[in-house]
Amino acid sequence: MSWFTEKYDENVKISYKFDNHLFHKKSPFQIIDVYENNLFGKYLVIDDILMITEKDEFIYHEMITHVPMSCNPNIKNVLVIGAGDGGTVRELCRYKSIESITMVEIDKDVVDACLEFFPQVSSSLKTDSRVNLIIGDGIEFVKNAKTNSYDLIIVDSTDPIGPGEGLFSVNFYENCYNILNENGILVNQSESAYYPFNIRELKRSCSKIHKIFPILNYYQAFIPSYPSGHWLFGFASKSIMPLNENINEWNKNNFKTKYYNTDLHRGSFYLPNYVKDILKESKNS
Amino acid sequence: MSWFTEKYDENVKISYKFDNHLFHKKSPFQIIDVYENNLFGKYLVIDDILMITEKDEFIYHEMITHVPMSCNPNIKNVLVIGAGDGGTVRELCRYKSIESITMVEIDKDVVDACLEFFPQVSSSLKTDSRVNLIIGDGIEFVKNAKTNSYDLIIVDSTDPIGPGEGLFSVNFYENCYNILNENGILVNQSESAYYPFNIRELKRSCSKIHKIFPILNYYQAFIPSYPSGHWLFGFASKSIMPLNENINEWNKNNFKTKYYNTDLHRGSFYLPNYVKDILKESKNS
Repeated sequence: MSWFTEKYDENVKISYKFDNHLFHKKSPFQIIDVYENNLFGKYLVIDDILMITEKDEFIYHEMITHVPMSCNPNIKNVLVIGAGDGGTVRELCRYKSIESITMVEIDKDVVDACLEFFPQVSSSLKTDSRVNLIIGDGIEFVKNAKTNSYDLIIVDSTDPIGPGEGLFSVNFYENCYNILNENGILVNQSESAYYPFNIRELKRSCSKIHKIFPILNYYQAFIPSYPSGHWLFGFASKSIMPLNENINEWNKNNFKTKYYNTDLHRGSFYLPNYVKDILKESKNS
Repeated sequence: MSWFTEKYDENVKISYKFDNHLFHKKSPFQIIDVYENNLFGKYLVIDDILMITEKDEFIYHEMITHVPMSCNPNIKNVLVIGAGDGGTVRELCRYKSIESITMVEIDKDVVDACLEFFPQVSSSLKTDSRVNLIIGDGIEFVKNAKTNSYDLIIVDSTDPIGPGEGLFSVNFYENCYNILNENGILVNQSESAYYPFNIRELKRSCSKIHKIFPILNYYQAFIPSYPSGHWLFGFASKSIMPLNENINEWNKNNFKTKYYNTDLHRGSFYLPNYVKDILKESKNS
């Protein structure tokens, strides 16, 4: 019996059995593994951190996508940074109203591994003509992109260590602000408020985004395969509030979703007091 | 370096470091351990399952208590089953409006260990004169208690294996129904909708309670130290709805809480679709 082990903290580690170790590669950026067990199906690990499992990937991908899409039904041009597994793009491709999806992922090996082992997550990357997949550096991309050109930017990155690090910097957020139009929304995976490492990174990114965007709220999702299971997303925007009168209109799409619904959308912004305190402190720092 | 390991499933196990193993006892009912590390402080383990940590116990105890208390400000007589650590009673004791709290815990050794090692959780058991602590079998207690005598019953049990098992039975729920008055509320910890073992028990208890109580809703909390981090509570009642016009009145108490607030109360009932599907299926079974 073999186990993959992820460290959440010096004091906590979680181990997942694998029956098969399907893939292992050291890319120029990170170490990529694909394992399989009979609970999760296949699961993707990057630098010894669990990224997605077939069992629960829908939670992360629905929540990073449908929350902003529901806030503004006029979103047409989307930029996705990271998201090499393709799940975020899969959810975006369900919207007929979207005209273009530019995805910038630094690591071609992640995309290739996901196309091979997670086709139900990644296949829109190949099959939807609105998707423009660029293998390149998201940090450079936002620096050089045209101002006012996107309605939505989704930063679907790894943790802020390794190649993900620059995606949590002031310059990056400033460039995102500039290339968003006047109704622009920036959503980024924002770690968690439980383990010290995650809290530190949440605070750092919150404090930076707050200085740049007039609106910044956080929402939460139950993601069992991430540390603590309590994951946060930053919702930053120039003018659109995350709880607005458009949300219920989303139901007209008649999408079948496994996690997201418009009541839960509201509830996801109602944070525990201790999380609100951490965010308040970060905004004031 | 020593580690305590809990199995979530055949495929998943989590390990917590301990610097000190403060207590170990085989009681007549179960094996009780108290460990300590510098992330959690002290933590209580029963039959190799993590029960509470000093770091996050407030989440479970606030959510099992303030949700029902906020739904009915006229709650005066409360019955608590299990809850040997005392945290649920601690939160109840904050309400001046409560006249009596009867707590029935089967295992005196759990209470004694918590009085010794977790005084900030358990001390109300000794210091509040409204608390009547009975060491005995909750299943027998509800069978023999007077009808219409409680406004609220909280079942704060271990998992439905070992001594907790009978607290998930039809007879138990029927007896709870009988001893609750016409506005009575039953709240019970209901496991989770992620790992197969927890799903099975959630479904079994949901299906049973649904046959007895006219109102049954579920609410959720982010509890990092429980399997999946996504924990559910059943809210069953004879007449009171969990989202009613009383909730905001709760703020007049001016309680300082670390997790609970009245917005979050609402959000906690807005469940993911896949959880709603599991509950719907259980109610129809």
